[in-house]
This record gives sequence, C-alpha cells and structure tokens, in this order.
Amino acid sequence: MIQRPRGTRDFTPAEMALRRVIEGTLFSTATGFGYQEVATPTFEHAELFLKKSGASIIEQMYIFKDKSDRELVLRPELTAPVIRFYANDLYKQPKPLKLFYFGNCYRYERPQKGRFREFWQFGAELIGTNNAEGIAELVAFAYSCIANIKLKAFELRIGYLEILKDILTSWNIPIENQSNLMILIDKGDLDSLRAELESSGLDDLQVENFTELIMDKFKAIEFNDRYKQLLERFPMISNNLERFKNIIEFLDTFGLHDVTIDMGIARGLDYYTGMVFEIDVPKLGAEKQVCGGGEYSLDELFNLRDVACSGFAIGFDRLTLAYEIAGLKVPENILDIYIVPLTTLGLEKGIEISSRLRSCGFKVDLDVKRRNMSKNLKYASSRGARFVIFLGEDELNHGTATIREMESGEQVKIKFDKLTEHFQKIL
Amino acid sequence: MIQRPRGTRDFTPAEMALRRVIEGTLFSTATGFGYQEVATPTFEHAELFLKKSGASIIEQMYIFKDKSDRELVLRPELTAPVIRFYANDLYKQPKPLKLFYFGNCYRYERPQKGRFREFWQFGAELIGTNNAEGIAELVAFAYSCIANIKLKAFELRIGYLEILKDILTSWNIPIENQSNLMILIDKGDLDSLRAELESSGLDDLQVENFTELIMDKFKAIEFNDRYKQLLERFPMISNNLERFKNIIEFLDTFGLHDVTIDMGIARGLDYYTGMVFEIDVPKLGAEKQVCGGGEYSLDELFNLRDVACSGFAIGFDRLTLAYEIAGLKVPENILDIYIVPLTTLGLEKGIEISSRLRSCGFKVDLDVKRRNMSKNLKYASSRGARFVIFLGEDELNHGTATIREMESGEQVKIKFDKLTEHFQKIL
Repeated sequence: MIQRPRGTRDFTPAEMALRRVIEGTLFSTATGFGYQEVATPTFEHAELFLKKSGASIIEQMYIFKDKSDRELVLRPELTAPVIRFYANDLYKQPKPLKLFYFGNCYRYERPQKGRFREFWQFGAELIGTNNAEGIAELVAFAYSCIANIKLKAFELRIGYLEILKDILTSWNIPIENQSNLMILIDKGDLDSLRAELESSGLDDLQVENFTELIMDKFKAIEFNDRYKQLLERFPMISNNLERFKNIIEFLDTFGLHDVTIDMGIARGLDYYTGMVFEIDVPKLGAEKQVCGGGEYSLDELFNLRDVACSGFAIGFDRLTLAYEIAGLKVPENILDIYIVPLTTLGLEKGIEISSRLRSCGFKVDLDVKRRNMSKNLKYASSRGARFVIFLGEDELNHGTATIREMESGEQVKIKFDKLTEHFQKIL
Repeated sequence: MIQRPRGTRDFTPAEMALRRVIEGTLFSTATGFGYQEVATPTFEHAELFLKKSGASIIEQMYIFKDKSDRELVLRPELTAPVIRFYANDLYKQPKPLKLFYFGNCYRYERPQKGRFREFWQFGAELIGTNNAEGIAELVAFAYSCIANIKLKAFELRIGYLEILKDILTSWNIPIENQSNLMILIDKGDLDSLRAELESSGLDDLQVENFTELIMDKFKAIEFNDRYKQLLERFPMISNNLERFKNIIEFLDTFGLHDVTIDMGIARGLDYYTGMVFEIDVPKLGAEKQVCGGGEYSLDELFNLRDVACSGFAIGFDRLTLAYEIAGLKVPENILDIYIVPLTTLGLEKGIEISSRLRSCGFKVDLDVKRRNMSKNLKYASSRGARFVIFLGEDELNHGTATIREMESGEQVKIKFDKLTEHFQKIL
C-alpha cells in the first residue's frame, strides 16, 4: 500500500488538537506583543536561499524545476522569504514593522527523533529598529512564547556575534574566513576551531583567550562584574559590549531575570550579525534547542542597507514534543452532545435537534449508522461525548428527550423545546 | 530583486486577518458537526495521484525527485492523502470517521483571477457510512460552512453520478468509455458529448433524452413531480433514484430548503461515484464554484471495498474573494494600547507597564524607536491603536499615566497601579 514519504508525518485528531492549542498560544502571545501575521509561498526561487543560507542548509534543500524550467525550492526556513516580501511590498509600511508567521519548511536530512523532512516554524521579524529596547522586546516576546505554553524548564542563552567578529577582525582574520570559524563555533567543534585559529597566525594566548570566551557561560546578573575583565582582555569590543550591556539591562526590565550569557552562540545561518540568542529545553536531549534568533542583515540580497532587522524562529515540532514530555495535557476537543435516534421519526427529530444545537455553537454528532443503543453508547464513549440524547418511541410520544450524562450515567428527561436552554445552562 | 514565484502569493497582515476569520468559522462549523481535524504532508509519492486523479490534474502536477530518486509530488488535492492516512493508520478508529483538514495544494496552471499555483483547500471526509442521512448531513455541513461566513448569495446544486452511469451502462456504453463522457459533462461541452454518444451507437432519442437530463435543473421541491417522469424515461435508475430521493428529503430535514437538482454535475476527479454536489457563488463569475464533493471510491488504490466514503472540498481562496466581493468586513486585528515613553525613565516604566498589560491578554505595542509625540501619534493611528499611554516627566513625577482615546481624542490620567483595572473595565 502507498505510504507517506519518508521523514514526513500525518497528524491524528489528537495530535492536531495539541498542535492547535500550542499554535493558539503562540498567536495570542504574538498579537499581545503587537506583531501581525503574514504568509509567503511554500516554494521560492532557489536563488533566494543559495547566497546566504549556509552550506549545510543548501545541501539539504529540495530543489526542483517547474514546467517553465524555473529553479524552485521548498523553503528551508522563513526569514529570507519574509524579508523578500518586505523588500518587494511591505517596505512602504510604517516602521517598526513587527511580523510573525507560522509555516512548514523542508530539509532533506536523515529522519530522527525531533527531526523531520517537513517541519513547522513559528517565527517573527522586527524590521526598522535596532534600539536596545526593541531588540530586548523581541527576545522577551520569544521568551514569553515558551513561558506562555507553561513549559517550566527552559533556558534562554544570549550572545553577541559581532563581539566575536570585532575580536577576529582586530586580529587580522579576513572577513571571508570568519564565517567558517562561526560554523565551527556553532557546532561546538573546539579542536577544529583551535587548529583553524592557529593556522590563521594567532598566538597561543589569543587562541586560549578566544576559546575561553566562547566556552564561558554565566548569568546576566554577573555581567557587570565581568564587564571590566572582558574589556581589559578585548579592548576592541568596547562599543558592542556597551550595547550588549544595554540590551541585557532592558531584558531585566522586561521581566527576564534568569538569562544566561553565552558568547559561543554563532547560529547556523550566514546572515546573523549582532545580538543572537537561543532557548533550550534540556529535557529534549540532543535536540534541546527550541528557539533561535538574533540580529541579521540580508543586504546582499535585497539592498536594505539602512534597515535594521532582527527575528527568531521556534521549532514548532520540538516545542510540541517538549510539551508532551513535560506531561502537559491538552483540553480534548470533545463532543458536547451525541444524538441517538432509535426510530425513523426519532431520526427526523434528531436531525432537527442537531441543527438547532449546532446553530447555538454546541459540538454535536448524530448517529447516521442506525445502530442499536449499546453500540451507540460505545461510539459516544470513544468520541468522548459528554451527553447522549436518546430519541425512541416513548420520547417521541411524550415530546421529551432522554439525556444521559456519560460520566455519571445519570439521566433526565427534557421537553424538546427546552433542550437548547437546558444545554446552555450546563455546558 | 528576487520576486516570489509566478502564480503564488504573499499575504499581508490585513489579508491574513481576513483568512484567519474565515478559517476560524470553517473550523467551528466542522467541530460543531462532530468533525475532527487531521493533517498530511505537503508532498506525497506521485503514484498516489497518478491513477485516479483525472488527466487535467495529472498534467498540472508539480512532480519532482528527491535525493534518493523517489518520485514526489506537491499534493494537487487533499482527498487522496487523507484516505491514504486512513488506509495506513486510521482504519482502526470507530466508524463513522468524520475528518476535516485545511491545507495548501498545488497546480501548475496559467495564473488568473481566483486561480493560483498554490491554493488552499478546506475539506472533509466522512468514512464508514453511506446511509442517506449521513450523506445529507455531510452536504448540510458544507452548506453551513458557506452560510456561517454570512455569504447570502450562493447556490447548492446536487446531482447523482451513478444515475448517469446506470443509464449509460444499460445502453451498453462500456465503463471505460464512461469516464471520458463524464469529463465532457463536467466541462459542459454538449456538442462533443452528443457526438461521442452518437458514435457509441446511441439513437437520436437516447442522445436527446440524456443531454436533456444533464441540462435540466430544477428545485428539490419539484422532485416528487419529476420522479415518475424520470422513472418512465429511465427505468434502469429506479434504485439510485429512490436513494437520491431519500437524501433530498433528509436535506430538507437538515433545514436546506432551497436546493437545486442538477443532473449535469460530473466532477473533475475520476473517483466519484454516487451523489455529487457543488456550491456556487454567482458573483464570482467564471470561477463561481467554491465547493464540490460527493460520494467516491478509492478502492483501486487502497482496497477499501467495504468502506463507504464521501467528502467535499472548499476553495478557500475563492471563498475569501467571495467574502470581499460581498462587502463583508473583518474585525481588524487592532492594537489595544500603544505606549509612548517620552524620557528614559518613562521607557523603563513603559516596559514594565507593557509586560503587565500583555500578561492580562491585551494587545500592546511600545515605541522602541524613541520618536517624538507627533510621530508616535501618527504611528499609533496607522496601527489602529485604540488607546495611547504617554509617559513623560510629569507622568513619572506624579505616578500617573496619561491615556488618550484615539477616536475621540479624550484624555484621562490614571495611577500606574490602576492601569490594568482601568483597561479591564473599558476593553
């Protein structure tokens, strides 16, 4: 039998119910922060991603040609498309432009736990400001997304790519070599990083100071103590360190009191520039990172030289997994009322009642398989129905419905014309 | 500059707000009818669509190979994937299984008004019953979807494919030739249909009777009058005509009193069998059909010989267009409160206030560009903010915020610690 393609998923009603709850929370968090939703196509011209996406992403892209020989790609991520949309159309809008989106992305990689060939990203872009409070608000928004779905155990780490670049540049490492170093930092491959730094002509102390910097993690509350020490060791970072300090202070004002400083955050995409951050859910193990973002520049693609950009993406599938691992339960999308007609007349009355109750907003199902009472009760129970209405001969003769509460098994009789009122009281 | 691919769309915040309102209405209608949401991958193995999709769809498919040389296709429609999901996994679930879904589909065709290469379908499948009341309930669900988004001018037409097939079969037209005839009926190409029927050896009266049947449209209320006449002319349809009559009667019980009978509905997909229906919004012109569905069989693909299936799909983009054409307005996703700090201390206070108000569920934005009062008022107005909070020196000294209602221009002063309470009263 035909199966779904490897690395993709089907989602059952229970899985979709969970996903919708999390999606809804992310949406309301976004609108709460004044962000507005946009959407872009599932495929783009390949060139949009070929220049600035980083080698590992390009290798894993689904590239194909359409019937007019256009080279298209199933989007591997959503920042470049949204900035394309901005550069094409939205550039006229008042700044700052605060955009969010939720969409599927594609990477051809070996399927494994928490990694799929089709996966979902929820993300946001802040366009048109790079004031420290704006950047801090973006981070606070990402943090609130995770906090609002009631995950308790997660960690926000924040770094600053340009500080690393300041150091490397002042040590005469050419810009074009820095991106390779960033990849090694991102991978946490310290041995290769040291070797690469040494072969670039740095002395032992420089290599040691630099690797120590990117390995060191400390709490934001210790930042002021570290400030002087960092500045002594790396005088070339003074401007960016001062800005970093401002952002961290604003994070505190936004209520984020437990932030970890991690100068080893380098991000996988080539277009990141200043502040960068990641959020981990340690319980997820190797795939613990659920969110990543920062300041970036897509100048080369779109000539947006004067427009400051920052953003983040949340791995929606991992977040869903984290939610399940945390043992959080979703209110099931249960049926309010299941109607069981036991005669032909009962069926007609049942249809009428179902229409009336549905028009009042209740979730109503009706037996359309003409089953007997016991089979119907079994079905109602499998669907999690809260109430069952029986419509047999007796009920039709007296103009009343028998209503059974499934959990307690208690039954009451209610006049047909009082049914809506009855359920409006108890549901 | 890089543009989006031809035939695709980006959606602005205003467009997304509209789409979300319509999506929400379709979702609540679906859960109201006891349907549950599922989702399937964006691409499938090509063979899923190659056998039963109809020539025009196959021609327009986006087929491509992945890195393991699998032949994949961007799904052209959603029924086959959902039935694949059913056959792979969901077959164990209690029947009837009532599933709905909302997803993007792809067809490579000439872009034109209301037709795009990436388009969205909302749809449903009813699996495991073919009782007349079940089929009628499915149609009532589709009808309610359109009615619930408050479109006034739309028309439900219902036909019965198997009645046409009964006639053709009894006239010795081989099954394999019938599908070509169905395509001509679906296109409304009567000249070719007549020619084809004649070349199949039918006499003039047969050709005339058949074309008359498929051209004739009448109201369901006239069905009983027509019943005898149809039966006299086509005695071979008696069983299916009786079943059709039952379905139409149940539609009336479900409150659908204005149904058009249209025996010329043949549907574009090869897998339809019994009752079929379409819903039109005449104001949309040539692309007036917003919904289509019916009973179908995917036996050949999945060996589901004992499982009755029916379903429908709504063209979400056309529905959105119909909504706009009807002049219906979406409640804008406006900002509740925009905070304007006018000093550094005001900025800190503003951040605190924004966090407090956001945690109460308000949609709050904050100036992060440090603009002056007038520029901020302009921005607040462009974002449709209902209230603006000013935080200047005076406000900070007195521990109060100045709140301006944007529409009236009225201003009040409220103590910082009473702000939440204040907005909870008025918003």
